[in-house]
Amino acid sequence: MFKKVLVANRGEIAVRIIRTLREMGIASVAVYSTADKDSLHVQIADEAIAVGGVKPTDSYLNMKNILSAALLTGSEAIHPGYGFLSENALFAEMVGEVGIKWIGPRPDTIELMGNKANAREEMRQAGVPVIPGSDGFIRDFSEAKVVADRIGYPLLLKAAAGGGGKGMRFVYSEDELSDKFDDAQNEARLSVGDDQMYIEKVMEHVRHIEMQLLRDKNGHVVYLPERDCSLQRKNQKVLEESPAVGVTPEMRAYLGDIVTKAAQAIRYENTGTIEFLQDHEGNFYFMEMNTRIQVEHPVTEMVTNLDLIRLQIEVAAGQDLPITQDDIQVNGHSIEVRLTAERPESNFAPSAGTVDLVFLPTGGPGVRIDSAIFVGDKVQPFYDSMIGKLVAKADTREQAVQKIHRIVDETVVHGISTSLNFQKALLEDPHVQRGEFDTRYLETEFLPRWTESLSEDE
Amino acid sequence: MFKKVLVANRGEIAVRIIRTLREMGIASVAVYSTADKDSLHVQIADEAIAVGGVKPTDSYLNMKNILSAALLTGSEAIHPGYGFLSENALFAEMVGEVGIKWIGPRPDTIELMGNKANAREEMRQAGVPVIPGSDGFIRDFSEAKVVADRIGYPLLLKAAAGGGGKGMRFVYSEDELSDKFDDAQNEARLSVGDDQMYIEKVMEHVRHIEMQLLRDKNGHVVYLPERDCSLQRKNQKVLEESPAVGVTPEMRAYLGDIVTKAAQAIRYENTGTIEFLQDHEGNFYFMEMNTRIQVEHPVTEMVTNLDLIRLQIEVAAGQDLPITQDDIQVNGHSIEVRLTAERPESNFAPSAGTVDLVFLPTGGPGVRIDSAIFVGDKVQPFYDSMIGKLVAKADTREQAVQKIHRIVDETVVHGISTSLNFQKALLEDPHVQRGEFDTRYLETEFLPRWTESLSEDE
Repeated sequence: MFKKVLVANRGEIAVRIIRTLREMGIASVAVYSTADKDSLHVQIADEAIAVGGVKPTDSYLNMKNILSAALLTGSEAIHPGYGFLSENALFAEMVGEVGIKWIGPRPDTIELMGNKANAREEMRQAGVPVIPGSDGFIRDFSEAKVVADRIGYPLLLKAAAGGGGKGMRFVYSEDELSDKFDDAQNEARLSVGDDQMYIEKVMEHVRHIEMQLLRDKNGHVVYLPERDCSLQRKNQKVLEESPAVGVTPEMRAYLGDIVTKAAQAIRYENTGTIEFLQDHEGNFYFMEMNTRIQVEHPVTEMVTNLDLIRLQIEVAAGQDLPITQDDIQVNGHSIEVRLTAERPESNFAPSAGTVDLVFLPTGGPGVRIDSAIFVGDKVQPFYDSMIGKLVAKADTREQAVQKIHRIVDETVVHGISTSLNFQKALLEDPHVQRGEFDTRYLETEFLPRWTESLSEDE
Repeated sequence: MFKKVLVANRGEIAVRIIRTLREMGIASVAVYSTADKDSLHVQIADEAIAVGGVKPTDSYLNMKNILSAALLTGSEAIHPGYGFLSENALFAEMVGEVGIKWIGPRPDTIELMGNKANAREEMRQAGVPVIPGSDGFIRDFSEAKVVADRIGYPLLLKAAAGGGGKGMRFVYSEDELSDKFDDAQNEARLSVGDDQMYIEKVMEHVRHIEMQLLRDKNGHVVYLPERDCSLQRKNQKVLEESPAVGVTPEMRAYLGDIVTKAAQAIRYENTGTIEFLQDHEGNFYFMEMNTRIQVEHPVTEMVTNLDLIRLQIEVAAGQDLPITQDDIQVNGHSIEVRLTAERPESNFAPSAGTVDLVFLPTGGPGVRIDSAIFVGDKVQPFYDSMIGKLVAKADTREQAVQKIHRIVDETVVHGISTSLNFQKALLEDPHVQRGEFDTRYLETEFLPRWTESLSEDE
């Protein structure tokens, strides 16, 4: 096992990883930007090294400095967390080249899955159902037109190397196709330096269902109970749960079979999550694969009693998975809500400042709160607005909803604005309470009603 | 199900109960002394009623005022927590007489088990092995002499109605018996108004093993995995864990069978815990029964995924237990340490004051922190010094020790003195790490060494 591991991240996920390292008897090295010098992850790590200025590109995305920090401290492995460099194939390769283990999949796997068109094609060949659309890349309008005539409208133009909506356009009719294709391709060329495009049919009234897997270097693979992350705003998950309301044990076994075969086909290493869309007839379509630990992994840990970070580290160190598929049961129901430093009342404008009071209602069974904030902590405007994750587990979904509502209700954070009121209202929504929603529900139905109710309150 | 429940307690257990009530959709009523008006349990309850002055006898032991509060608020049941009135048969009876449900066993059961000599006799007749000693009461020296000649020395004189060491004497030889018997009987008469005595052999090199049971009004009964609470100081538990290191699955089934039969014999209702001594040959002897929820119930909840407070409430409302023995598995290993407002360095002198900083390292899998403290909270000198419970669960005992050590190490409380350094040292002790200790280990071996190490540090 490793003696020392560098954690190339910040905030709650860095804290989460450092704590498991401590429990495994592994020394931890934190890295930090100048803005984060007093952050919790810096305080609780065995060592901490400054890697650059406040801007992510200067610090948490600064590959050379992070690599130097790892070499300087004698770190034997790097855990990238999520975000930042976690899906950067080049960085993963650089890490390997200097003899340090990457706690994640091989660089070629990261690269394959990072190109959404290639990933789609690879999964299709591995027998994974994909969203109707192009086979491989689209280079120009005429190729796009052929696909569009076949699958119909609305459709989605996507940049193969895109992300965060760059090079992406919804097309509702043939009239729009030509202009939007040129627009999207230009944007892709300018923003990600790659103008390869692909096309997918727009799936309506679908749920976001994802399934995480773990595979060791000797080819043992397990899949974990699915998560439903349909409640999203601008493609950002707002509430996640496991198991999914609309997934039967048979569907779970079906998805498990698919992800297992896909993982074997590409000889995947470590943990990853395959995201699917589920239509209202119960069909599943591959959307993309995340080649890292995900924000919402706690709900899976709650229902399986596993420590997924520990498993990641063990597998990266070359150990066999200590569990088989039979060891993995779904125990109860877990829900996570993301606590963000935002003003949902003002179109989710980010909020920054110093936390001068915090009360996290830890206590009792089935409660978990992952956060890096503390009294005196400075919430920075430079990074992601998520400052914590509130997680509940209970025997049934209904009880889990009641518990997470109670937790949100009791949580107090002063000094910054937070999403607590918004999350509380969301949990009081009858559709959310009954589990009746698709990926558009939050934005098209809940938010307009909630915004209106706010103005009525004034 | 009840619509409203009064919680006749304070601190972490009141908070624990109120939270489960909230999750069950039941309105909660807190009671408080004048010293506790800003306490957490008052803040989070739906209603709160002052019941008296700072002294426990004026408030949390004030039966008339608490009963009035329950009637005034239309409470349908009272949860007594632990301590205070939780094992007061008279109060439980008064509660029943005004038509309010008692969340605990019947008054006659509380009374039976409250008289230690009667409890011992009842258990003996139900087939539970008891510590060698007297059968029934001892009225005078000559009766004591007969028992002493039979079982030998050292022996323990105990007041049948005693508690907290009142009317209790260790007797090491025949020479001491006469004087000590008179002393103890006089003390019993003066302190508890009852001079009935009984005798037990002093069991040396034993572990404290206890087993909790739940029984509903229709006679369904389940037992829960045992707890080891051998690490004690002055009969106060300092660290508790489940399962016990020295209890095999066969022993667990044997103890389970005993407690099940005992519960059926006395038609026990709700939850209770039978405490045993385990000698080094693996024999178990009945010590006493606690007719209430116990401080250390979280370790059981961690390894069983149950909410024991919820089950107490359901059973008290007349519902059948929703689980059978087959539903109860031992999942991993859990350890709890008690966070107290004390100065262990000064012979555990109690500490009081205002909490001006608190950091509880909630987060990650297998962490639970039950506490009622917050920034600005006043820790009172009038009540029990326990201010929180730090609980860890992991796959193995070794991992659970590492986790709870990490939790203790990260916890910060300023403004009062706490037991954190002492608990940390205890968790670093090789005997504790290996699970090698008996009920005397902490006081006779660990504490002298630790105290010495403190003076060396100076």
